Amino acid sequence: MTYELHYWPTIQGRGEFVRLALEAAGAPYIDVARSAADSQQGAAALQSRLHDRGLTNPPFAPPFLKDGALVIGQTAAILQHLGPALKLVGRSEQARVWTLQIQLSIADVVSEAHDSHHPIASGLRYEDQMPEALRRASDFCRVRMPKYLGWFETILARNPGGSRHLVGGKLSYADLSLFQLVEGLRYAFPRAAQVALVGTPAVMQLRDRVASQPRVAAYLRSPRRIAFSEQGIFRRYPELDLP
Amino acid sequence: MTYELHYWPTIQGRGEFVRLALEAAGAPYIDVARSAADSQQGAAALQSRLHDRGLTNPPFAPPFLKDGALVIGQTAAILQHLGPALKLVGRSEQARVWTLQIQLSIADVVSEAHDSHHPIASGLRYEDQMPEALRRASDFCRVRMPKYLGWFETILARNPGGSRHLVGGKLSYADLSLFQLVEGLRYAFPRAAQVALVGTPAVMQLRDRVASQPRVAAYLRSPRRIAFSEQGIFRRYPELDLP
Repeated sequence: MTYELHYWPTIQGRGEFVRLALEAAGAPYIDVARSAADSQQGAAALQSRLHDRGLTNPPFAPPFLKDGALVIGQTAAILQHLGPALKLVGRSEQARVWTLQIQLSIADVVSEAHDSHHPIASGLRYEDQMPEALRRASDFCRVRMPKYLGWFETILARNPGGSRHLVGGKLSYADLSLFQLVEGLRYAFPRAAQVALVGTPAVMQLRDRVASQPRVAAYLRSPRRIAFSEQGIFRRYPELDLP
Repeated sequence: MTYELHYWPTIQGRGEFVRLALEAAGAPYIDVARSAADSQQGAAALQSRLHDRGLTNPPFAPPFLKDGALVIGQTAAILQHLGPALKLVGRSEQARVWTLQIQLSIADVVSEAHDSHHPIASGLRYEDQMPEALRRASDFCRVRMPKYLGWFETILARNPGGSRHLVGGKLSYADLSLFQLVEGLRYAFPRAAQVALVGTPAVMQLRDRVASQPRVAAYLRSPRRIAFSEQGIFRRYPELDLP
């Protein structure tokens, strides 16, 4: 059973949260738009798939996953679906909903990180909304990022299964997503992230533990891992970081 | 089995999506912060609950639901949990994940509607981010709102169970949430919403059908339904609407 991941071919973006889960589980998948001869062709194929009038359940936007006849969009819904098959979520309904809840809070930070460089419109360039971005990013670095990271630290500390994982005593897709969030924040806002992460040692230890997980480590060294860039969600514009 | 809904006592906000599901199902619940002697006391009780150090799974923010020993935050996770018990979601895993996916797209519009009046920081007043709000709201009214509503129209048209519901042939929590979204958009942006909804008749018919569902209609007439206001997510600032 080979999964098909559909996402923009040249950025990590939200697709990366799904890719990390598939990679960490060693699941067979095709990264469809990246399998095209070139990335323009890949992006065109993705667009035509997205607007396929034959789809009963068309996704609103990438990423989406094809699992047999099922087509699923929205990162957190994809992970909610994949979790049991990839053994990246606890079996109980309680573990599944708590993992989903954490994932949704990660998704909220990701959206806020995106809006720190695009506070007005995703259809406009960064250069066309820079004054607004400077204000929004300042609030994100000083208020929102520390608040979210503090919450992750709290739930790690309170996990009855121990602070090595977010949920119970095993790796879940939420751990992988928190790793990706921390990496993204450190890329985009090196100074602000360093300040915030000093206060959240358990989050940083989780990030290190995920990075050294054998399948994840092999993936991160491979050409399958796209580099962070100023086209993705996490962008390094030094003027948006703490001074 | 009485559910406890925890949310700010004076606004609809994100709590309303949960309240509508409980009301439409006729489920017994206590609206905890609104049961206090006055709303200040209710808000204080909510805050202290949120920061209760004894909670194993503390929510990041309201709304959260207490269901026996379980405490669940994040609107979409609450609805994912409540759906089967309230019979507001199909039984198959496929129906559950599609309903979740729709709910997450509704949540995305809700966040964008919020950011149309708070594009810089939720901790600042609207008056302190008005120039930015004017730009963001213009894009929201002209680009984002019609795009999302068009997607809801498409999935209604393609539903194999018919366009009377979003998923299958029965009322789901996603139908209730779409009703609330349409109400919110019509309140906040009467002109822009009217323009957009002319092009999405099935969405508008769904809104009407939900509103006339007996339990929903009774709820909407009751004092339990809080009025829209300029403290909530959907705010009527005429300068942000289409001219």
